[in-house]
Amino acid sequence: MMPSRLEDLIAALRCLPGVGPKSAQRMAYHLLQRDRDGALALAHALEAATVNIKHCDKCNNFSEEEVCALCSSPKRDRSLLCVVEMPADLLMMEQAQCYRGMYFVLMGRLSPLDGIGAKELHLDRLVRRALEYPCEVILATNFTVEGDATAHYLATLLQSQDVKVSRIARGLPVGGELEQVDSGTLAQAVLERREVSA
Amino acid sequence: MMPSRLEDLIAALRCLPGVGPKSAQRMAYHLLQRDRDGALALAHALEAATVNIKHCDKCNNFSEEEVCALCSSPKRDRSLLCVVEMPADLLMMEQAQCYRGMYFVLMGRLSPLDGIGAKELHLDRLVRRALEYPCEVILATNFTVEGDATAHYLATLLQSQDVKVSRIARGLPVGGELEQVDSGTLAQAVLERREVSA
Repeated sequence: MMPSRLEDLIAALRCLPGVGPKSAQRMAYHLLQRDRDGALALAHALEAATVNIKHCDKCNNFSEEEVCALCSSPKRDRSLLCVVEMPADLLMMEQAQCYRGMYFVLMGRLSPLDGIGAKELHLDRLVRRALEYPCEVILATNFTVEGDATAHYLATLLQSQDVKVSRIARGLPVGGELEQVDSGTLAQAVLERREVSA
Repeated sequence: MMPSRLEDLIAALRCLPGVGPKSAQRMAYHLLQRDRDGALALAHALEAATVNIKHCDKCNNFSEEEVCALCSSPKRDRSLLCVVEMPADLLMMEQAQCYRGMYFVLMGRLSPLDGIGAKELHLDRLVRRALEYPCEVILATNFTVEGDATAHYLATLLQSQDVKVSRIARGLPVGGELEQVDSGTLAQAVLERREVSA
């Protein structure tokens, strides 16, 4: 009933995360019916990205070169190494314009249930990187259960090699009101209170 | 900060329906990080489908040939022409194994707000098709506001050309209980009641 190449396309679309059989069908119909130019452009973009995008040797972020522009920039502070989970987190850090050091992108978080352990996250490369040059490692993984567990694991691992390790602060957001913040955040903010210097 | 081919890929993924900037980014990361084979297969499937899949000259369904297998089959009853909105509806009809006639796939429904009128749905081709051979046109568009409006418009158009037109029945589903059905369906079932022959 259905052309075989349409069946192939519906099957191939299911490699996208969160796309089941019904959405794959809807996407295929939409592309063939209303956006064939978009479909061709997507095909070419997929091919170009798959062939050309590797991981930066230094920070593990996506890059078209061996070493990415950020890692080869002479303007960055090599005594700071910030560990983030995903490239999007690195972008957020850069947009905040609060940090001029180097990065290491884990491309994930420790998640034993999904089969993601220390080896999958290339943590040996991170340790080698941290020992390469005397630096402070700033753990900027998410404040989720998995992100916290990853930070804890990394802290233990790096401290055993005498690397200075810090974790970004947890507390109320800027402009946050006590009345509106969730109780977990408030409890942490009290627990991690800082002494006010005179 | 981001390789240009990665930016291109994220932009291209947004041609998919229901995919915004955040999901496009998540999809691109997932493909590059965990499923490069899937990404290449998707690129090839998109290209093959876009180049090879056309619309059947007879029924307007997706087809790799001028006239699809169903329309060229000698086993189908040419005196019945069923109008459906989408290829998925045709598949459902075939799976129900209740119908051996021909089809016309609108590839949409009348939806003036989205700029889809009689011309976009190729209704002139449907009328020509209905006049080609003496037949009954069975309207099997959805029982939504837009599907009903499309059926009403088609009925008026086809009856003005003296074509016999019918609409599939609305009522309680098979196995349906009065207690559980919504009141709109129940009201329609009473309104469209059929006389029981002795």
